[in-house]
Amino acid sequence: MTDRKQLLLTPGPLTTSDATRAAMLRDWGSRDPAFIALTRRVRERITALAGGADTHSCVLLQGSGTYGLEAAMATFVPPDGHVLVLANGAYCHRIASICEILGRQVEIYETGEDTPPDPAEVDRRLAADDGITHVVMVHCETTSGILNPLASISEVVAARERSLIVDAMSSFGAIPIDVNATPVDVVISSSNKCLEGVPGIAFAIVRSEVLAASAGNAPSMVLDLQAQAAGFEKSGEWRFTPPTHVVAALDAALEQLVEEGGVAARNARYAENCAILVEGMAEMGFRTYLSHNLQAPIIVTFHTPDDDAFVFSAFYDGLQRRGFTIYPGKLTKAESFRIGCIGQVFPDDMRAAVAAVADVAAEMGLKTG
Amino acid sequence: MTDRKQLLLTPGPLTTSDATRAAMLRDWGSRDPAFIALTRRVRERITALAGGADTHSCVLLQGSGTYGLEAAMATFVPPDGHVLVLANGAYCHRIASICEILGRQVEIYETGEDTPPDPAEVDRRLAADDGITHVVMVHCETTSGILNPLASISEVVAARERSLIVDAMSSFGAIPIDVNATPVDVVISSSNKCLEGVPGIAFAIVRSEVLAASAGNAPSMVLDLQAQAAGFEKSGEWRFTPPTHVVAALDAALEQLVEEGGVAARNARYAENCAILVEGMAEMGFRTYLSHNLQAPIIVTFHTPDDDAFVFSAFYDGLQRRGFTIYPGKLTKAESFRIGCIGQVFPDDMRAAVAAVADVAAEMGLKTG
Repeated sequence: MTDRKQLLLTPGPLTTSDATRAAMLRDWGSRDPAFIALTRRVRERITALAGGADTHSCVLLQGSGTYGLEAAMATFVPPDGHVLVLANGAYCHRIASICEILGRQVEIYETGEDTPPDPAEVDRRLAADDGITHVVMVHCETTSGILNPLASISEVVAARERSLIVDAMSSFGAIPIDVNATPVDVVISSSNKCLEGVPGIAFAIVRSEVLAASAGNAPSMVLDLQAQAAGFEKSGEWRFTPPTHVVAALDAALEQLVEEGGVAARNARYAENCAILVEGMAEMGFRTYLSHNLQAPIIVTFHTPDDDAFVFSAFYDGLQRRGFTIYPGKLTKAESFRIGCIGQVFPDDMRAAVAAVADVAAEMGLKTG
Repeated sequence: MTDRKQLLLTPGPLTTSDATRAAMLRDWGSRDPAFIALTRRVRERITALAGGADTHSCVLLQGSGTYGLEAAMATFVPPDGHVLVLANGAYCHRIASICEILGRQVEIYETGEDTPPDPAEVDRRLAADDGITHVVMVHCETTSGILNPLASISEVVAARERSLIVDAMSSFGAIPIDVNATPVDVVISSSNKCLEGVPGIAFAIVRSEVLAASAGNAPSMVLDLQAQAAGFEKSGEWRFTPPTHVVAALDAALEQLVEEGGVAARNARYAENCAILVEGMAEMGFRTYLSHNLQAPIIVTFHTPDDDAFVFSAFYDGLQRRGFTIYPGKLTKAESFRIGCIGQVFPDDMRAAVAAVADVAAEMGLKTG
């Protein structure tokens, strides 16, 4: 059944390991003690990955990453809260839209898609408006692949005694986050990015006092992370039917992350993947959208070549036939495409991907390549 | 990895087939044409199962069944709507709670946990209050296992020109539903009940005019089924990352439902499972909570024996050790336990389960058994 040749070089869902998928070959009773123990282990491992074992709690949630974001905004921003969103891509704007739908007051500090937010400007805005209760940022914006400056933003937000919520969807597990060294109240991510599980679970890692103070905020039954956490604490069970096979796969994937050497080792592998990709593409003349110092080792945006022979769908299909799935661009102001560096892919896979690009470029008669 | 000996005799998650689990051994790109085609096939098959191919549309949703219920209430009951919930168990009351959290006006017509709603009383209430816009019922209440009278309720609701929403969580795929012969605007169910997929997806089968008229109702981004449907119609893609492996498993499970002979054949197998269970238990002296004519062939509630030697946890553990996972009771007024008849379980499995109960009863020194 398994088609090992097709590698997903996307922002996710990603290529997973055989062991992770094999963990789905068993059915679990959702109230069974063995499954309750598995759930507890997953929650503890995730909290520990963020350095939050003594201060934070991991709340698992059925659904995609966006479910986790909506649930976090609904639960941790009270109805009279006021959110400042730092925006340089589509995912930041999606969070602002969620706040609007939920009726939470929101304002946006916008920078260009290739420009990180300026901590001094964040500080100025917080100083000027005591009403701002929460700051929300996206750690790695997969719109462009930019890495936003978590440490310096965290410092400013902590000094002004506001609450920082971080969308670490595409960075968690590959770019170190320590929720105490770099104070963060809430980190949100999902099973199917750098943890290399399969899709179906989001999670929030939440400071205990924030969790305790959030009862009754959420205008939803299923997206109430405080109630979800209370369920885990009470019985160890999920409040509503969990995606048991997906949870088992995440447990297996977390075990493999330990075996690989943790976040540092995964970061090193992805960084090598990224370097091989960027250098190989540069040799053919493909230019990255971001400068090197802004690029996270997660997903790389390339400018579409200025060449009439380049048609994205043909480029995509050519790579697909050679076993590599890439991703369209999402920038608002530049024609682009994206290639991911994450998942169960290794330096040799990236070399093969670069060779496949050269092959497709030749087939298409591109000047680049 | 697979532990085929452990059968889940619960309301779900259930025992699935090897073929269904094996369908999860492949990674899919969520935007890939092959996955888009798979998603379309799943949606069409589910709509056809409900007899709604020409009138209804299937909206898949990431999450558990309760996500589907909340999303349906949020999307299809407008903010000024007024819901009448027919309640004879915990799941009906959960729907009423969801309406309250969402700020939708709700009233409850309550009958006992062993008593179906009376269509004449529903008619009287609808006649007396023009303001009631929606009637919500649970087809099979797994609190007790009761089958509620869908056809006669549908007739009354249609005659009074109100909208009927049916929670068919534990019946869909095993008890025939035809959304036109028995008019229903919205049917909600999930992947991991009688369709015998794995958990992680809910779905609603929605009358097209109802779907078209519901834009802007939902106070949520992710639980907006109108927006979700619009996404499927526009590109064939899911709006947010789908649980790709769970979708593939559901596709495989739906293929197996066809191979088995459709809903009629599955109903016959479950009915035989149920009869073997009830008769075998009766021979030992275990009494069902419901009379035969009210019992759906989904899950059976048994009275706890009036015997000091009966301790549920020991009974559960004894059956668990013999390869059968059963379920605690959920009735408000009687001590009980539940045994399910659904999933990839067959008459011989039910005979083995009855034999295991006899064995455990002897071990515990019960007078029953």
